[in-house]
Amino acid sequence: MATVKLLTDDELSADAAAVFADIRATRGSDFVNNFWRSLANDPPTLRATWERLKAVMGSSDEGGLDPLTKELVYIAVSIANGCTYCVHSHTAAARAKGLTDAQYGEFLQVVGMASQTNALVTGLQTPVDDVFKPE
Amino acid sequence: MATVKLLTDDELSADAAAVFADIRATRGSDFVNNFWRSLANDPPTLRATWERLKAVMGSSDEGGLDPLTKELVYIAVSIANGCTYCVHSHTAAARAKGLTDAQYGEFLQVVGMASQTNALVTGLQTPVDDVFKPE
Amino acid sequence: MATVKLLTDDELSADAAAVFADIRATRGSDFVNNFWRSLANDPPTLRATWERLKAVMGSSDEGGLDPLTKELVYIAVSIANGCTYCVHSHTAAARAKGLTDAQYGEFLQVVGMASQTNALVTGLQTPVDDVFKPE
Amino acid sequence: MATVKLLTDDELSADAAAVFADIRATRGSDFVNNFWRSLANDPPTLRATWERLKAVMGSSDEGGLDPLTKELVYIAVSIANGCTYCVHSHTAAARAKGLTDAQYGEFLQVVGMASQTNALVTGLQTPVDDVFKPE
Amino acid sequence: MATVKLLTDDELSADAAAVFADIRATRGSDFVNNFWRSLANDPPTLRATWERLKAVMGSSDEGGLDPLTKELVYIAVSIANGCTYCVHSHTAAARAKGLTDAQYGEFLQVVGMASQTNALVTGLQTPVDDVFKPE
Amino acid sequence: MATVKLLTDDELSADAAAVFADIRATRGSDFVNNFWRSLANDPPTLRATWERLKAVMGSSDEGGLDPLTKELVYIAVSIANGCTYCVHSHTAAARAKGLTDAQYGEFLQVVGMASQTNALVTGLQTPVDDVFKPE
Repeated sequence: MATVKLLTDDELSADAAAVFADIRATRGSDFVNNFWRSLANDPPTLRATWERLKAVMGSSDEGGLDPLTKELVYIAVSIANGCTYCVHSHTAAARAKGLTDAQYGEFLQVVGMASQTNALVTGLQTPVDDVFKPE
Repeated sequence: MATVKLLTDDELSADAAAVFADIRATRGSDFVNNFWRSLANDPPTLRATWERLKAVMGSSDEGGLDPLTKELVYIAVSIANGCTYCVHSHTAAARAKGLTDAQYGEFLQVVGMASQTNALVTGLQTPVDDVFKPE
Repeated sequence: MATVKLLTDDELSADAAAVFADIRATRGSDFVNNFWRSLANDPPTLRATWERLKAVMGSSDEGGLDPLTKELVYIAVSIANGCTYCVHSHTAAARAKGLTDAQYGEFLQVVGMASQTNALVTGLQTPVDDVFKPE
Repeated sequence: MATVKLLTDDELSADAAAVFADIRATRGSDFVNNFWRSLANDPPTLRATWERLKAVMGSSDEGGLDPLTKELVYIAVSIANGCTYCVHSHTAAARAKGLTDAQYGEFLQVVGMASQTNALVTGLQTPVDDVFKPE
Repeated sequence: MATVKLLTDDELSADAAAVFADIRATRGSDFVNNFWRSLANDPPTLRATWERLKAVMGSSDEGGLDPLTKELVYIAVSIANGCTYCVHSHTAAARAKGLTDAQYGEFLQVVGMASQTNALVTGLQTPVDDVFKPE
Repeated sequence: MATVKLLTDDELSADAAAVFADIRATRGSDFVNNFWRSLANDPPTLRATWERLKAVMGSSDEGGLDPLTKELVYIAVSIANGCTYCVHSHTAAARAKGLTDAQYGEFLQVVGMASQTNALVTGLQTPVDDVFKPE
């Protein structure tokens, strides 16, 4: 249950409808997920968020990160922030981009390991080694 | 300033010294960073953490994640958890494993994007679409 | 599903009933929401939490913050902490205190922006400028 | 100590220099704080972040939030996310925009109250009341 | 709804089945909860997590923490991390280990108090007193 | 470096001075740590926070939690929230109340374990078992 109405296509403002059209064209799919339908209540935020997401998560320049790695980073942040929606939507996206069960298993191991050592270091208040600091 | 003493090599218990020897052999370096020196106050935790870290972050089986991707996932979690030590040590590790400036720039963009959309979704309490749920 | 029973009016201890009476008198409404019904299992916590909430969120002294601004600060914290109940209850409270759709849209933009820059700064470990520190 | 070099004006790329010029013109001040100097290592992120921040935190449309309220929301998120840099820089910004000691005291009380009730509700797993859900 | 299938006993790999057998023997109960059924999709993570959990949460050496105190620490972390599943499962575990209503009430008070002062200190950026630092 | 001045005894308002006197009397020590010196800038928050802390962390009623367990819960929350000041001050407090090295080692193991399983469960979005829910 969202704090706002999830807008149907018929309820969109002209500006929101234009963003939805770009989402559909970019993804090559008629499906528009609930995140955008909730954001559509505030068209400027809808547009800014979509434009930025498209730029950040899309194909990288030469030498950048591949799309699956980007999804894994995205899910990792979403787990640490406890965002149920984001974990579900981006795990689905990662699978659509080729994530295998073996990779997913390793990914969760790394997320668990990092969470554990984050807590140990914070509990111990271990100071940063000089060698880890850029000169 | 840690909550415990950072143990020098001379102050290690026999069990902790054995772990330090394995850290050095595994990494091919004499340097042992402060995280292990703080954990060394509790040898069972030192050993369990090192054994698990070595297994999780080391070379993957066929078809698993590459070491650099694992580091990026690790840093992503550490940023979201606000762990200064972990951000520094694993950013240094990622660079040692070949992270380029271009990749690092894209990585931070994804972390920023995920953090932003996590907050928007949590603010809006958007419900998960049925299509994102495994059957 | 709470970890405790949500107490009905008939199940309240005398002390909890007195707090419920004050909640109703203060709010001018017979409705008492689930937060208080779960807290009512521990009357001292119920009383201490209600007394403090009433003092903090009520009308300010001359020159303080207006009630709507207080609600927005409350929701912002609740989003960052991932508290579903709190986001829903205080978004409803903010609307009851006059929050408009335009204000809500801007509020979410700020929350998203802060979340993004928080992550970027933590990833970059940017040191605090001297000018931001009180003399 | 950042994970990247804090770039001086002499070290900026042409694109980063253009963003710095807009920061200075918009703020009417020659000072550019460390956040931008660390972001300047990745000019596309620098530009995207600055453009969005300028749009979000600047003057609102008719009926929007006032600049001081925006800063308080920003600080609230930054506190909950544990971002030292952000707390310092935006507390300084809020003061520059007129935050009084009395308002700051009330602000911290609300942040503390929300943090406490967030934890209580999460501990109790209190279900959301139907009345808080939009129809 | 998990991101993976919750495996029934019939669907377990041989390695996962061996872990389930140890869970049942250790706990003296046929019931295996969903956490293990979701982890069972990746048998190495299932085994490593169970082995570590058994070691950490089991009976302590002479002079260690009692099992109920361990559960309270576990719940406290889970509340702060916003983990619904963990709050429910470990609150149930704590009750099975003897947690009384009076103790639970005090526990929640401490969690609420800590959350509040964490936020106040982070908002104020109070520096650590020298006396709190180990020599 | 705090966002406010750390007030010396000479700079306290009459109300803040009265709270400091109670802190000293309650603790049987002349030392007043920086948390209270930063809060002293807002006497109502200082008083409310101290009164509540004294009630929550002090001696329990018959059948409540012992003071050391309360400190461990407090530190656990503070670690998960990433509060450096709170970790340091309450680890020192726990030691003053008798925390041994062996107990501290076990405590950190539990905190690390909980952090890891919190992340795994959130990544897997494991649904809560019916048996963990109160009737």
